[in-house]
Amino acid sequence: MQARVKGARVPQAVAEASAVPGRVKSHRVVLGLDPSLRGTGYGLIRREGRQWIAVAFGEVICPRNWERSRCLVRIAQTMRDIVGRHAPTICVVEGLFFAQNHQTAMILGEARGAALASIAEAGLEVIEIAPRKVKQAIVGYGGAQKHAVAKMVQRMLRLSETPTPDAADGLALALTHALQGQGPGIGVGKTI
Amino acid sequence: MQARVKGARVPQAVAEASAVPGRVKSHRVVLGLDPSLRGTGYGLIRREGRQWIAVAFGEVICPRNWERSRCLVRIAQTMRDIVGRHAPTICVVEGLFFAQNHQTAMILGEARGAALASIAEAGLEVIEIAPRKVKQAIVGYGGAQKHAVAKMVQRMLRLSETPTPDAADGLALALTHALQGQGPGIGVGKTI
Repeated sequence: MQARVKGARVPQAVAEASAVPGRVKSHRVVLGLDPSLRGTGYGLIRREGRQWIAVAFGEVICPRNWERSRCLVRIAQTMRDIVGRHAPTICVVEGLFFAQNHQTAMILGEARGAALASIAEAGLEVIEIAPRKVKQAIVGYGGAQKHAVAKMVQRMLRLSETPTPDAADGLALALTHALQGQGPGIGVGKTI
Repeated sequence: MQARVKGARVPQAVAEASAVPGRVKSHRVVLGLDPSLRGTGYGLIRREGRQWIAVAFGEVICPRNWERSRCLVRIAQTMRDIVGRHAPTICVVEGLFFAQNHQTAMILGEARGAALASIAEAGLEVIEIAPRKVKQAIVGYGGAQKHAVAKMVQRMLRLSETPTPDAADGLALALTHALQGQGPGIGVGKTI
């Protein structure tokens, strides 16, 4: 469920941008979160000197035959566990999104609510960044494919393997916050 | 935030229906929940012999100027507190609902997710009943107004005052479960 990579590094350009005082605020450990009922992606990055490294990333998988309420408990507990273990001080979650219909939107909302209640209860600041802005920040193009985001995240954090798409989205959200101020509109999040 | 009424009774007809063995299963304390970000309504009823009494009901109010994540924490914590205090074993939540758009549906979903994660984590069974079925069971008409539901809930539980609309919805959901089997389709919920 949770893969760990210690010591992976972001490219120097990213590291330098993120080391500019005042741009990344004072958050040293950033949690990126892409919630969904069956496969919540998350990624934690930590600033080490002038660089950002991947600390943990993965997915909270809830099988199709699990009841919704059981999934919500699993998501809430996993988030509590991750936050307790790695002590991030900010969580970046996907903002505006696409949903097929109201029912889908509500179920996605339930997953978000279960995760964010745990996270906010632990005292983290929660910000929302639109998916387009994440793609823009990571790949340079707001309409980029999920695969392209995963590949770029792998390169930026020098991971030995490409993360799963959901885990990559979590890392991408965290990195987008880390990169803020590096380009127009990049990483600008809204506190929720 | 939380009003308590002890000793209020359901009318005899309701009490008798709810006392039929096997119809109300083994749940003695039922939590009804009508979640929303700013005003989550809840109602707890308990079976005492052949009658159902209101144990607690009210609203979790989150002011407009609170950030969403703060509301989610408040909702999750209040639910944990209520469940810990009154030990319900089943939670009945509104099923299909009306939402103006996807954003509204997602925000409503967040409130539901925060509440249900707490509730399910405490081991409660969670079932969903459509609002129309609740109105049908309580007022006898699926298109009933909120006010009519509140009035009927007041009468059924012999409350001294009409509950607020949101608290009444919580009580109505709980009562609908208690009434199950009393009429065609009444109280039939779906485990989620």
